[in-house]
Amino acid sequence: MAEAKGGAPVVREGWCAARFRVRYAETDAGGVVHHSAYLPWFEEGRSELGRRTGLPYRELEAAGVLLVVVRARARYHAPARYDERIAVWTRMTEVRSRRCIFEYRVVREDDNRLLATGTTEHVPVGRDSGRPTRLPAPFLDSWQASMRRAMEK
Amino acid sequence: MAEAKGGAPVVREGWCAARFRVRYAETDAGGVVHHSAYLPWFEEGRSELGRRTGLPYRELEAAGVLLVVVRARARYHAPARYDERIAVWTRMTEVRSRRCIFEYRVVREDDNRLLATGTTEHVPVGRDSGRPTRLPAPFLDSWQASMRRAMEK
Amino acid sequence: MAEAKGGAPVVREGWCAARFRVRYAETDAGGVVHHSAYLPWFEEGRSELGRRTGLPYRELEAAGVLLVVVRARARYHAPARYDERIAVWTRMTEVRSRRCIFEYRVVREDDNRLLATGTTEHVPVGRDSGRPTRLPAPFLDSWQASMRRAMEK
Amino acid sequence: MAEAKGGAPVVREGWCAARFRVRYAETDAGGVVHHSAYLPWFEEGRSELGRRTGLPYRELEAAGVLLVVVRARARYHAPARYDERIAVWTRMTEVRSRRCIFEYRVVREDDNRLLATGTTEHVPVGRDSGRPTRLPAPFLDSWQASMRRAMEK
Repeated sequence: MAEAKGGAPVVREGWCAARFRVRYAETDAGGVVHHSAYLPWFEEGRSELGRRTGLPYRELEAAGVLLVVVRARARYHAPARYDERIAVWTRMTEVRSRRCIFEYRVVREDDNRLLATGTTEHVPVGRDSGRPTRLPAPFLDSWQASMRRAMEK
Repeated sequence: MAEAKGGAPVVREGWCAARFRVRYAETDAGGVVHHSAYLPWFEEGRSELGRRTGLPYRELEAAGVLLVVVRARARYHAPARYDERIAVWTRMTEVRSRRCIFEYRVVREDDNRLLATGTTEHVPVGRDSGRPTRLPAPFLDSWQASMRRAMEK
Repeated sequence: MAEAKGGAPVVREGWCAARFRVRYAETDAGGVVHHSAYLPWFEEGRSELGRRTGLPYRELEAAGVLLVVVRARARYHAPARYDERIAVWTRMTEVRSRRCIFEYRVVREDDNRLLATGTTEHVPVGRDSGRPTRLPAPFLDSWQASMRRAMEK
Repeated sequence: MAEAKGGAPVVREGWCAARFRVRYAETDAGGVVHHSAYLPWFEEGRSELGRRTGLPYRELEAAGVLLVVVRARARYHAPARYDERIAVWTRMTEVRSRRCIFEYRVVREDDNRLLATGTTEHVPVGRDSGRPTRLPAPFLDSWQASMRRAMEK
């Protein structure tokens, strides 16, 4: 569990982390990571969480369902720089057949500094129809179980 | 002024538009524009608005001040696809020495369909100090005048 | 026709230009445009050239054929910076049923400085089969005619 | 050491690997990774190689020197898809005070399929002067030693 500088945890049990280093291509002329790069980082958090549940996002798409982003929010607390070690802590806060919400906390691992927080909301959409659909039952069950375990902790 | 399908305007007077076509590199395996691409599009809207005021963002950086993004929000209403004509309508809804807020409406020009809406909040930061600073007076005056003209319409 | 500083033309007749400004998101911590951004710029050049021929790339994909990049080369002569006006001059140097080659010259319009040159090689691939296929006849004819007109000038 | 399907090694001793999974944001509407994404992947290979030598690129920039890309070449052999495990094998083939060349082999780890190969050429440039300079001696020595060890194997 990551701890903030003062000792307070920046993430609690029940979150799952994707870890990587900042890429040079993600920085901008301000010398820090461009704010748009955090959305792919959030997505890496979702991908890792899906893999941990045993039903990864790749398999949802293979089943003909896309989890389309309908809303994204980010707050930027401190800048990230090239080569820093990043952890994107992720959890689901809502898993329903027609809507999922993910929450993120981006932490610099070198000093456990909280860099950004955010949420994304998603609706399942049929790949071929392009229309809203239901999250297939195995994904709904698996992801809800994952969320409950996270919440209990 | 752009009109929605039913005749209601999707943007009002006083907004400024950046126009371009969707790049192939902006699409993803879902067949549509990746949601992270809208943040650089919003940024294009800000850039265009700055150029129209006569005091572009480039000159703010030349004066040693970065306008750092501290918050971004986006809602995605309909997908965009490769080669479509896009307009990013932009206006400022708050211009103060310590904080600016921009609002965006992304429209597909072929049918005036509203694709996305969003806002970004910014604070002026000294390039060298890395600390919050005041928006230099010429920018504050010029941008506030631009905002007032937009609001009056 | 663009002229280099000394008066020598940096591009000749028969090339087609895509024009845009450098986006902030395309810059990196070195203060200039990241070298990977030029490949989407080349792609914009291809897109524009396709539109000019009357048979745009979008329609090739609609016909079930992707023009897959098998080789890309770029030389970087001078850096580009945020907000600069860019023209990507593009022409086809080979159009065959199984292979196409495009050539690019990226020019800063403010001073006609040549920033980068490059080439990309492509093979037509069936979207569903994932296997090499022939460029459909209307595209082959239209693009060859375009190339010949360019070469004659 | 990675082995190709038939048993022949796709990389030899003396190369260094950066490993990660394909991000969804790196894919395009063709369903595969966009060809421009390989340049940041190559860069990840360079970053990892620099870290292994004990004198990472971050420290070169801290010393006021940028390693500017003057030439990039890529060949694309097979497509990569979302979530696949990637290794970017990297080595230096030339390390001089005025020029460095890196070589890359991108491999899908699931089946050791060779996806892409490429090279990049770089010149050291002073961050403040913007002009070519010499690679500082500690980097030159460390990187040449690394290259020699790689070549001997």
